Amino acid sequence: MEIAILLFDRLTALDAVGPYEVLSRMPDSTVKFVANEPGPKRNERGSLALVADYPLDQVSRPDIIVVPGGPGQSDLMNDEPVLNWIRQAHETSRWTTSVCTGSLILGAAGLLKGLKATSHWLAYDVLRSLGAEPTPERVVIEGKIITAAGVSAGIDMALTLVARECGDKFAQATQLAIEYDPQPPFDTGSPEKAPAEIVEGIRSRSRFAMQGGEERIRNKRK
Amino acid sequence: MEIAILLFDRLTALDAVGPYEVLSRMPDSTVKFVANEPGPKRNERGSLALVADYPLDQVSRPDIIVVPGGPGQSDLMNDEPVLNWIRQAHETSRWTTSVCTGSLILGAAGLLKGLKATSHWLAYDVLRSLGAEPTPERVVIEGKIITAAGVSAGIDMALTLVARECGDKFAQATQLAIEYDPQPPFDTGSPEKAPAEIVEGIRSRSRFAMQGGEERIRNKRK
Repeated sequence: MEIAILLFDRLTALDAVGPYEVLSRMPDSTVKFVANEPGPKRNERGSLALVADYPLDQVSRPDIIVVPGGPGQSDLMNDEPVLNWIRQAHETSRWTTSVCTGSLILGAAGLLKGLKATSHWLAYDVLRSLGAEPTPERVVIEGKIITAAGVSAGIDMALTLVARECGDKFAQATQLAIEYDPQPPFDTGSPEKAPAEIVEGIRSRSRFAMQGGEERIRNKRK
Repeated sequence: MEIAILLFDRLTALDAVGPYEVLSRMPDSTVKFVANEPGPKRNERGSLALVADYPLDQVSRPDIIVVPGGPGQSDLMNDEPVLNWIRQAHETSRWTTSVCTGSLILGAAGLLKGLKATSHWLAYDVLRSLGAEPTPERVVIEGKIITAAGVSAGIDMALTLVARECGDKFAQATQLAIEYDPQPPFDTGSPEKAPAEIVEGIRSRSRFAMQGGEERIRNKRK
């Protein structure tokens, strides 16, 4: 089982590393971190670099594709080599997945038209503009496409995938191996559960970034 | 707020990246990934490298220390430069933390004697041999030392720390920003909850690795 995880500058690291920690434990699996150009890719804060070991053209037929998100996603939505790699790899993949705003990249590649999908809760409008039907669920499965909600949701997505691919018992053992018995100190992990003032605070701070993404899409379409 | 996260070869990537994704969102914070020698550090599977940007001696007085775990922990337990860095940084830190078997490194540095602490559930015996009192809780706070259980527990640990340092509202907003509304597909994330056969399966497969760790400790003490 070959697993390709896409890296790019200004990604959100946990989007990639959460599913990695689960999927890399599948039997007979090989994970390859891929990018347009191999080398260290810095996250959106600049303080963490993950290394992409392979160029896209060396990993053309992965069994599983993982596309993480993060602010750098907006550049990738206009990056034809990346979008073409996703389209072609998706033709033969067993599973094509995304975490957080990684679904916007799948959408830009044209993979989500008419499908239910999820993303970071701040990105539903952009997701809709790409032809998908935003769905506020943590993990959304449409055929072989699995999209996950924001950042930490990639762990739940990957365990769901492993259960389908390797059976419930193996997925349960994986969950135990990474001691995934979450006990967050609060119950504010989704906009439905968090106090309204906290939701609005994040929404207003993020508006600028999100509008930037939408403008890039409009400019592309002109 | 300066946050130092220790990297080393054969670490478990999520141990480091989970708390990173939370702590790096603290206001006025700077995260520095440190190592004996800067450069890419490969995880225990070899397929993911995280880059350490700073040598230990350039980050001598961090406010927060994060020590992740992973099989490479066994080498660090005999690595005097690393243990000395931890001891000295701990003298002035606000918080000294570990995830998973990172607590064994804190223990080897002599920080956990007589204290309650946690670790990956497979490592309680080694933790006890280092003078700590193993405690099967997800996050254990003893003064300014916080130890977290296995792998994924670093996210809960970091949110707990952020709440103490920045207040509940900020921690709640951070939890919402990373959409940490965990919905694992199973309830098998701790040895108390998982079926006995799954627990025993992992325990027997890991015995060799754990015994290796214990032998290294015994050899060191001879």
